[in-house]
Amino acid sequence: MSLRSRHLLGLEGMPADDINLILDTAVSFKEILTRKIPKVPTLRGVTVVNLFYEPSTRTRISFELAEKRLSADTVNFSATGSSVAKGETLKDTVLNIEAMKIDIVVIRHQASGAPHYLTSVCQSIIVNAGDGAHEHPTQGLLDIYTIREKYGRIEGLKVVIVGDIKHSRVARSNIWGLLTLGADVSVCGPPTLLPVEMEKFGVKVFDEIDRALAGADVVNVMRLQRERQQSGLLPSLREYSRYYGITTERLKKLNENFTIMHPGPMNRGVEISSEVAEGPYSVILPQVTNGVAVRMAILYLLSGGRGKFDEQ
Amino acid sequence: MSLRSRHLLGLEGMPADDINLILDTAVSFKEILTRKIPKVPTLRGVTVVNLFYEPSTRTRISFELAEKRLSADTVNFSATGSSVAKGETLKDTVLNIEAMKIDIVVIRHQASGAPHYLTSVCQSIIVNAGDGAHEHPTQGLLDIYTIREKYGRIEGLKVVIVGDIKHSRVARSNIWGLLTLGADVSVCGPPTLLPVEMEKFGVKVFDEIDRALAGADVVNVMRLQRERQQSGLLPSLREYSRYYGITTERLKKLNENFTIMHPGPMNRGVEISSEVAEGPYSVILPQVTNGVAVRMAILYLLSGGRGKFDEQ
Amino acid sequence: MSLRSRHLLGLEGMPADDINLILDTAVSFKEILTRKIPKVPTLRGVTVVNLFYEPSTRTRISFELAEKRLSADTVNFSATGSSVAKGETLKDTVLNIEAMKIDIVVIRHQASGAPHYLTSVCQSIIVNAGDGAHEHPTQGLLDIYTIREKYGRIEGLKVVIVGDIKHSRVARSNIWGLLTLGADVSVCGPPTLLPVEMEKFGVKVFDEIDRALAGADVVNVMRLQRERQQSGLLPSLREYSRYYGITTERLKKLNENFTIMHPGPMNRGVEISSEVAEGPYSVILPQVTNGVAVRMAILYLLSGGRGKFDEQ
Repeated sequence: MSLRSRHLLGLEGMPADDINLILDTAVSFKEILTRKIPKVPTLRGVTVVNLFYEPSTRTRISFELAEKRLSADTVNFSATGSSVAKGETLKDTVLNIEAMKIDIVVIRHQASGAPHYLTSVCQSIIVNAGDGAHEHPTQGLLDIYTIREKYGRIEGLKVVIVGDIKHSRVARSNIWGLLTLGADVSVCGPPTLLPVEMEKFGVKVFDEIDRALAGADVVNVMRLQRERQQSGLLPSLREYSRYYGITTERLKKLNENFTIMHPGPMNRGVEISSEVAEGPYSVILPQVTNGVAVRMAILYLLSGGRGKFDEQ
Repeated sequence: MSLRSRHLLGLEGMPADDINLILDTAVSFKEILTRKIPKVPTLRGVTVVNLFYEPSTRTRISFELAEKRLSADTVNFSATGSSVAKGETLKDTVLNIEAMKIDIVVIRHQASGAPHYLTSVCQSIIVNAGDGAHEHPTQGLLDIYTIREKYGRIEGLKVVIVGDIKHSRVARSNIWGLLTLGADVSVCGPPTLLPVEMEKFGVKVFDEIDRALAGADVVNVMRLQRERQQSGLLPSLREYSRYYGITTERLKKLNENFTIMHPGPMNRGVEISSEVAEGPYSVILPQVTNGVAVRMAILYLLSGGRGKFDEQ
Repeated sequence: MSLRSRHLLGLEGMPADDINLILDTAVSFKEILTRKIPKVPTLRGVTVVNLFYEPSTRTRISFELAEKRLSADTVNFSATGSSVAKGETLKDTVLNIEAMKIDIVVIRHQASGAPHYLTSVCQSIIVNAGDGAHEHPTQGLLDIYTIREKYGRIEGLKVVIVGDIKHSRVARSNIWGLLTLGADVSVCGPPTLLPVEMEKFGVKVFDEIDRALAGADVVNVMRLQRERQQSGLLPSLREYSRYYGITTERLKKLNENFTIMHPGPMNRGVEISSEVAEGPYSVILPQVTNGVAVRMAILYLLSGGRGKFDEQ
């Protein structure tokens, strides 16, 4: 079994079979992570460059751990202190790195479409670790993995994504993946932060939180970028919090055995209360754990599922 | 044999047995460092995150080398270019990192008590690599190791710590460890930089350097933070140097076979002259070498002394 | 066979035998890079510190990959976020790092002669990864390797180096190495950016590009530092480009089967046109690939050619 695409660029248009193959493979890798020595020689001799043009803690570390646990050789590159400062183009940077016999490039970039562009100029396998407001497919996949782990399925679940949907690559990847697997997807946020064109793909769009939450199984709370307020899209954080913040009070609208998610980093007290974030229905930390397993599965499958899968 | 605590937070209150166990274990690791291949598979499969919220060269590299020589997997995180910039709390950062199945977190933080706080919010083993003006226990232990290596004992030695004691976590860790092992500990510096409460723990406090040095075996010279001058605690560097700088002239007061130490980085010509720093009684570079061995011992013991100890 | 020097500081004065030994050894390593698992255990247990005081993408990553493919342990150090900010001298930084039992220090520094200075204060093997405007010997060697790979020889080839020769360490290392191996070397650039003293070493100096290119086999185009314009050494980028930029039109002056080189990062449209950079005679990307093999050869030879050379 292998993926249809050589790259992981986004979840828009990815066939259900491919998504399920990644999720199924991640189950095996999650088991490996619980072993005393959570490491396999699967990607020995494979070189991965983590090319981060935007600051990141969790995604960069999660990829780096996934790579190390697969025994890949990893090299980190961040835009600060590099030849980016010397005015080199993205294309030249990547062609140069690739000329050093790199197998996989994991890229985060502020420009939507940067990873797609790379596939046309270089031969390496490209993994999108977040591009502008476009997609963050590994986050989408780990979110979907986490939901499937709890309910055993995605189909028919009512998932509500709350917050600044318009500028959120996390929201976008979740929406495409969830729709493909048959979830009932809603988004909710201030009208200025909602992409209206979503409705034509079958996404329900709400600007009233209580209506959105009614009967939902999963609430995925997006991080509120504080910059939105400066740009006039948001009256104030306090007002946002009052109308859209997920608090214990609001959870009453949800179905039994509901689930609270957040991709992090959280603004506690703004888009989510600490009580909810740490409450019994929160899977925020399991999301992070699953992220490593999902990224291992992706790197493994994109490398052609080659290499040994046994304990080292 | 194992340590009484799961973590290494500080030397205050650490039993003599535990300190001695670390020092004895470090002797074996120092021997390993002299081998042609200075590497053991002891911590294979153990993942360590080096979480540095303050700039550091030697401590970060020393830990990283200790980890690599134990065959641990290491991930570096520094506050620049990370989600700290996005306003995430220390607690959330660490919980997230830990959720990726980390075994040990080595943390340097500007806030005194940050490592202790982490032990209450996460399950990982915490190693304090310096917290505010509070403690820097691995530096204290490597200093004590270096003294013991030369004299074969700590008890009864007269150790003088010179400089800005008040703001120095290195001084503080040295004091606690040395007192526990029975040294005769003095501190000396300008009255504005001396913590008077030290006397009640049996530390002799001097503001006159020649009186402090009389009959001393070991002089541990603290780095002078140039910021102290701006904050009005110090008249001028030149004056500091004249009254407290350790020069060849001043060494006449010391016992035979005395020892000069400095945790680095040095302000040559301010708190210590180049002649003294490079002189025959200086153990400043052996301190650095011992640092790797001591940190290997600590990581080994905190991991429960598990794993193999043989040559790889 | 081994190198005459313990260090790689520059190509000035390096005997032809040593240069050829490095180039011949690099051929074997280049073959290793094409294997499925491009990794050998040659430098297992050897610790290399990459000490970069100037920003760098390709050189730092190239060294790091060379080290990892030789199975060395590597530690990265960059001037930002380090004790350099605390005012430590280069000497103390390196002595401290060395005290941690480092075998090889790869250093890039803004001061010409910094690597030479280190050889007098420390015991480690020093590799110059670029020092001020002085030398960049690994770049010179990979350039010469790339030329030799294509023509099978260096002797008698006409090589023209174009650009800001005066401030270019890359030009300088190329010139010394090429002269030693018997090439016919010319330099060409605006008079303000040409070092006139070069003529006495047998280098032809031109300020007219078409005369310089006539009958040349290899054109090595140096990066134009945009700072030169601010300092008044250059009227404008546009004028530079018109008089010295390498465009398809200019290539007519060259010999058949000519070669275009650039050490990167390129200012496309300034010193070189995109058409030339990506054209059939460009070896700009092969240069990068060869860089890893050449650096592996250097690290291997400087370590005394010790260790195993077989596939891991």
